[in-house]
Amino acid sequence: MFSSDTNSCPRKGFPVTTIQIGHRRIGSAFLRASRMINTHSHTGVSLCSSSVVNAAMATEASAKVIDGDSFAKEIREEIATEVSRMKESIGIVPGLAVILVGDNKDSASYVRTKKKACKSVGIKSYEVHLAEDSSEQEVIQHISIFNDDPSINGILVQLHLPSYINEQKVLNAICIEKDVDGFNPLNIGQLAMRDREPLFIPCTPKGCIELLHRCGVTIKGKRAAVIGRSNIVGLPAALLLQKEDATVSVVHSRTKNPEEITREADILITAAGQPNMVRGSWIKPRAVVIDAGFTRIEDTKNPEGSLPLGDVCYEEASKIASAITPVPKGVGPMTVAMLLSNTLTAAKRAHNFE
Amino acid sequence: MFSSDTNSCPRKGFPVTTIQIGHRRIGSAFLRASRMINTHSHTGVSLCSSSVVNAAMATEASAKVIDGDSFAKEIREEIATEVSRMKESIGIVPGLAVILVGDNKDSASYVRTKKKACKSVGIKSYEVHLAEDSSEQEVIQHISIFNDDPSINGILVQLHLPSYINEQKVLNAICIEKDVDGFNPLNIGQLAMRDREPLFIPCTPKGCIELLHRCGVTIKGKRAAVIGRSNIVGLPAALLLQKEDATVSVVHSRTKNPEEITREADILITAAGQPNMVRGSWIKPRAVVIDAGFTRIEDTKNPEGSLPLGDVCYEEASKIASAITPVPKGVGPMTVAMLLSNTLTAAKRAHNFE
Repeated sequence: MFSSDTNSCPRKGFPVTTIQIGHRRIGSAFLRASRMINTHSHTGVSLCSSSVVNAAMATEASAKVIDGDSFAKEIREEIATEVSRMKESIGIVPGLAVILVGDNKDSASYVRTKKKACKSVGIKSYEVHLAEDSSEQEVIQHISIFNDDPSINGILVQLHLPSYINEQKVLNAICIEKDVDGFNPLNIGQLAMRDREPLFIPCTPKGCIELLHRCGVTIKGKRAAVIGRSNIVGLPAALLLQKEDATVSVVHSRTKNPEEITREADILITAAGQPNMVRGSWIKPRAVVIDAGFTRIEDTKNPEGSLPLGDVCYEEASKIASAITPVPKGVGPMTVAMLLSNTLTAAKRAHNFE
Repeated sequence: MFSSDTNSCPRKGFPVTTIQIGHRRIGSAFLRASRMINTHSHTGVSLCSSSVVNAAMATEASAKVIDGDSFAKEIREEIATEVSRMKESIGIVPGLAVILVGDNKDSASYVRTKKKACKSVGIKSYEVHLAEDSSEQEVIQHISIFNDDPSINGILVQLHLPSYINEQKVLNAICIEKDVDGFNPLNIGQLAMRDREPLFIPCTPKGCIELLHRCGVTIKGKRAAVIGRSNIVGLPAALLLQKEDATVSVVHSRTKNPEEITREADILITAAGQPNMVRGSWIKPRAVVIDAGFTRIEDTKNPEGSLPLGDVCYEEASKIASAITPVPKGVGPMTVAMLLSNTLTAAKRAHNFE
């Protein structure tokens, strides 16, 4: 794994494994930082866009805060308009089926968020909640039913699945026309290849690029670094940046000098799942930083009992970058918005509606 | 496109468009360089491997010459042994079908080379040569026949096709189990993704990596650069290097500082199709250079009327790199060897033979 020296990061100075001790040690700074972001993301002062506010207003940081919440709202409104137009024109409402296996709290929470988002734009959502000890065959059987159901345009299996279920086998069972998560290897291949287009782009990386677009960031010709190479975020993010003519370097757990390579990037997307790994010294001055990392750490002082952290040490990075996404309210809400966007695309395609 | 200052490259100092003038200007140096490589690649003096000879023996260059011809011969011998074993054990001989459309001399020459290579290892080759004005439907019809024929394990459509034929549509018609070129997007997706394996790896990039393996070059943890991002070479080469835990940067026509990025690489694979673009100053000292570029330039003094050039200015690079492939006799013969390897793999898979 990545090695990260998080001990002196001003925001949260501790690795996940020692959070209790670390939190006690710098508890006040920790809470201050948390409040700061929440304030920013709701300030709404227009700079380059109504959704970009200037962190310098509240601290010495100079980076513009890319407010994912606000951009996601904008996108949901656009989708709601399209869903209405579709309903009025051809009497069809897009449908998304979500399959949840087991009782993982985080997974259940993600599913609730997605269902709520569907409702907000007029997409009909269907949920199957299977018991923790459900068999692979049962999961696939439900996918099969949704594959055959014309009122379902998108199928999503909430990850992670219980360990005894073969994730690949389950995901492969989703017919490609309804694979709104875009995880099918055929989709990834089409995303990677020149002159080909995937049916769907995976939601989180699509959300990252959408943020860059909506902030007016030029990608073409820029140097970009992606930290992490997961099938779900890092890999497709790198492929997308390359498709948009960035010169891309992929940093991962075997990279010997991640800091040096990251510091070369005009655009940085992180998806390592290593809280606060990316320090201020890793950031090229005036770079744009999109933090897709999201790790929950235990936090007894927080009403929810935990706090999400990104891969980037926000306080340090925001003094060096030109724009940065916070965690939470950065990439997270965009992921959900892109799921709705993919479901709408699937429905339009299924009904040949433009 | 890439901009390249080839005018002062000691080996061949001219862009393809002005070859006649340029050739006349530095004709003698040009021929000297050409002879030098041919001599080296047949010397066979053993250093790190029987197929690696030291360029310093004939010039001041220090790089070991990676002799693709010799490695390819080694691989063909291994394949021939396996083909014999298969024939003796289950009475089956692998079959490769090649479809050639039109009268392009280069394409016809490639097909001849491939058929000859098949014969040398005991793989049965089948050829369909269609007229230049054949329809897309005709090409697909022949693919369909080969798809259904159990004696055919691999199908290859020789590129480039006449412009009015949709290449994607034709390549997609090849059933994935016989796609020995590995160009199917599903294969590329599986190549890109972690924990997935493609049925076939495209031949040229597979040959590049095989050269690194057989030369004992460690890939894991190294910085690698790939110049070019074609579906056939650059993209899969980058994905393969990443799969082997290199930290990969992809340089392409929109990259603003290709020289700087290339110079960071311990391993460089070039697939730009820009003769002599990569100068000595682009190479990191002691880097390993795999030149998959291959551009024929007109050369009236050459018996064949043309001369192939790589992307790398060989004379300059060989003084700086630790090892380098020549052009010709570098990556080219490995591409053909990998085609045989993929065809053998397809046949073994079809007959469940291990």
